[in-house]
Amino acid sequence: MKYSGFVGEMLERAKAELGDVIEARRGGEVYVGILMPHHDFSSESIITLKLPNGYNIGIRADEKSRIKVVSKREERERKKQVLPYDPAKKDIAVISTGGTIASYVDYRTGAVHPAISAEDLVFSVPELLDLANVRAKVLYSILSENMKVTHWQGLARAVAEELNSGAVGVIVPHGTDTMGFTSAALAFMLRNLTGPVICVGAQRSSDRPSSDAIMNLLAATRLCVESDLGEVVVLMHGESSDSYTLAHRGTKVRKMHSSRRDAFKSVNSEPIAKVEGPQIEFLSEHASRSKGPVELKDKIDGRASMLHFYPGFEADHFDLIANHVKGMVVAGTGLGHVSEEILGSVSRAVDKGVYVYVTTQCLYGAVNLNVYSTGRDMVTAGAVPLGDMLPETAYVKLMWAMGQTNDPEEVRKLMLTNIAGEFTTRRFV
Amino acid sequence: MKYSGFVGEMLERAKAELGDVIEARRGGEVYVGILMPHHDFSSESIITLKLPNGYNIGIRADEKSRIKVVSKREERERKKQVLPYDPAKKDIAVISTGGTIASYVDYRTGAVHPAISAEDLVFSVPELLDLANVRAKVLYSILSENMKVTHWQGLARAVAEELNSGAVGVIVPHGTDTMGFTSAALAFMLRNLTGPVICVGAQRSSDRPSSDAIMNLLAATRLCVESDLGEVVVLMHGESSDSYTLAHRGTKVRKMHSSRRDAFKSVNSEPIAKVEGPQIEFLSEHASRSKGPVELKDKIDGRASMLHFYPGFEADHFDLIANHVKGMVVAGTGLGHVSEEILGSVSRAVDKGVYVYVTTQCLYGAVNLNVYSTGRDMVTAGAVPLGDMLPETAYVKLMWAMGQTNDPEEVRKLMLTNIAGEFTTRRFV
Repeated sequence: MKYSGFVGEMLERAKAELGDVIEARRGGEVYVGILMPHHDFSSESIITLKLPNGYNIGIRADEKSRIKVVSKREERERKKQVLPYDPAKKDIAVISTGGTIASYVDYRTGAVHPAISAEDLVFSVPELLDLANVRAKVLYSILSENMKVTHWQGLARAVAEELNSGAVGVIVPHGTDTMGFTSAALAFMLRNLTGPVICVGAQRSSDRPSSDAIMNLLAATRLCVESDLGEVVVLMHGESSDSYTLAHRGTKVRKMHSSRRDAFKSVNSEPIAKVEGPQIEFLSEHASRSKGPVELKDKIDGRASMLHFYPGFEADHFDLIANHVKGMVVAGTGLGHVSEEILGSVSRAVDKGVYVYVTTQCLYGAVNLNVYSTGRDMVTAGAVPLGDMLPETAYVKLMWAMGQTNDPEEVRKLMLTNIAGEFTTRRFV
Repeated sequence: MKYSGFVGEMLERAKAELGDVIEARRGGEVYVGILMPHHDFSSESIITLKLPNGYNIGIRADEKSRIKVVSKREERERKKQVLPYDPAKKDIAVISTGGTIASYVDYRTGAVHPAISAEDLVFSVPELLDLANVRAKVLYSILSENMKVTHWQGLARAVAEELNSGAVGVIVPHGTDTMGFTSAALAFMLRNLTGPVICVGAQRSSDRPSSDAIMNLLAATRLCVESDLGEVVVLMHGESSDSYTLAHRGTKVRKMHSSRRDAFKSVNSEPIAKVEGPQIEFLSEHASRSKGPVELKDKIDGRASMLHFYPGFEADHFDLIANHVKGMVVAGTGLGHVSEEILGSVSRAVDKGVYVYVTTQCLYGAVNLNVYSTGRDMVTAGAVPLGDMLPETAYVKLMWAMGQTNDPEEVRKLMLTNIAGEFTTRRFV
């Protein structure tokens, strides 16, 4: 948003544009920082500056305030920053896909949308460069609700390439909305990992002082450089304050809150690691780095859908979808149940050759189709229960399994094998 | 399941059949109780008896054990138990719908399926009768995955009838799978409540010693008789041991675990009350009993569906469903988002006159369509955000609202009014 009112006029008189470094004086106080867009929720008289430490502040201007341009954006961008290289340090890769975490120096448009250079992202957390050499690239600039199967595949290829050319770990800045789907997809597509692949997001855009981006990026870097982790994880705040972060297994994690900074939770398992300042504490069993090379199994068959059962779910609707897909994941109630009518639909779908796998919409706990008559009838109809696998992970895995083979028995075998920790109750490392 | 092996033969010799009261002697010990079916998971040599206190025990039989029939089931049933009436006590109603909680004296078939007389249900927790006179009826005997809109309506009518003819509260034994949907439906259909309406389930069938049925029924009775509560709630265990129960608001509760006894959680709100032994502690604001009469608003239009968005969700599939319904609840990602393709589908659906309401699949937290461009586009497309309302509650409420009026503006007004505490952030009592 542009500034309006007397602040708008004051900035215009000073020829200060968004992105310029300006000096703002008010009374005896002086602030120097990048002029950020006017924040929707701020009063007209607030000027938002990004300070050199990466934090934003709001300065209340009045008629006596003085504004001066220190350097123009265009000039700064002309002498483009180049990431330093120190042969004594390990290399990590940062492959950005977009999302809130990658939108915070978007001082051009003002709206929160993903648009940032890889270098800017890294320089916004200069401490990263104390820990590692960073190869930074922007692979996508999209909101994660627009991520598709093809994006997962492109990302998996880019990650494998970085790990197989010497990076000790890869950080994937990502929108939080579908980050759990992407982490599951990477976990199935990338085998024999030589280092951690860490999906990192932010719940607060970095034009707000409360942004969680910096701490998450820094903790991810530590895990890359200082741990033996060889898995795909999601790393986010462990509680709502800036005290520590948690790394969750990519196949067991779900966004469980729409706005809290600790929105991501490990479901049916413990987080893998806790990072608090420079301390890394492992909380549960995990796969260690392999000797490599990383194997890429990036074939995916997207013809699947996920259906949540509920009272009033029409069998006709189930049949409509079943006619258009090759595989379905049903998120049933309780231990994995559906109504008698939907049982009929499941049976018809299976008879037509559609794969039907069953998870629970409770999210926590496992399905068990042996306890009640409904469950037994589902097994008879040909539905296959998936233990404590998350519905979202099951959906991703089914598309991946269908991409690996056309043989229904092989698909079933893949679905029931613990490939990337998606079943808690069976060992996989 | 029938007994087999030497236990089967021993029972046959004694002419003991399932449901008979038998005396079992082993060494110096004597047990008297109802012979229950052999449990799937027990060893062949275990005899399961339901003791007079309602609990089941497993007795390991050997060749020296002695079995004697004390009374035959048929004889007991001939002199059918009649519930006592004490004019000094208040009346409550128990309207059973089925589910695990109502399946525990199903000694006829052995399988866990709902089949119990209302009197048996009450007599299984004789302490109920110390607290109140009980009017007991079996309205349905179904597994809750088979509950439909018409069942909700029949139940609402039965509840209103009991409250309007003097019951101080109504207990609704119900399968846990869809109990949260039913409690939401009752909360919208029943206004001006003169007492609590308490949906009660069990996560362990009562032919297992760990059953939670008895404690839940007893706590529900206390709330009916000893509190001023005038709301629809779900009452279940508050933790996995038998220490206390929690009453959750009917519109804010969700089954969050497939098997734990404390599976039900209040989402985005505190539970209403905690019942620990004879103690009732209120934990949050709630509606008190009205002077009555209870109003019944039981019209529901079932032509709605609930769709969970995910990466790879095909716009074609959305359109297929949209062509068959009058209203849709979308469970979007994060703050309530969908992909660009689905945005197009939302827009097309709204243009055809389909109601589209938005909730979050995170479950915790609220939707907010003002933060990101996707959200703003959804509002432009005509989707209406529903704050922190659960997707399941929103789906039930939309069908109810469509049943109340055909005017789109009136539907919208009803959807955005806090009718039964479905919005946490707005006052409703």
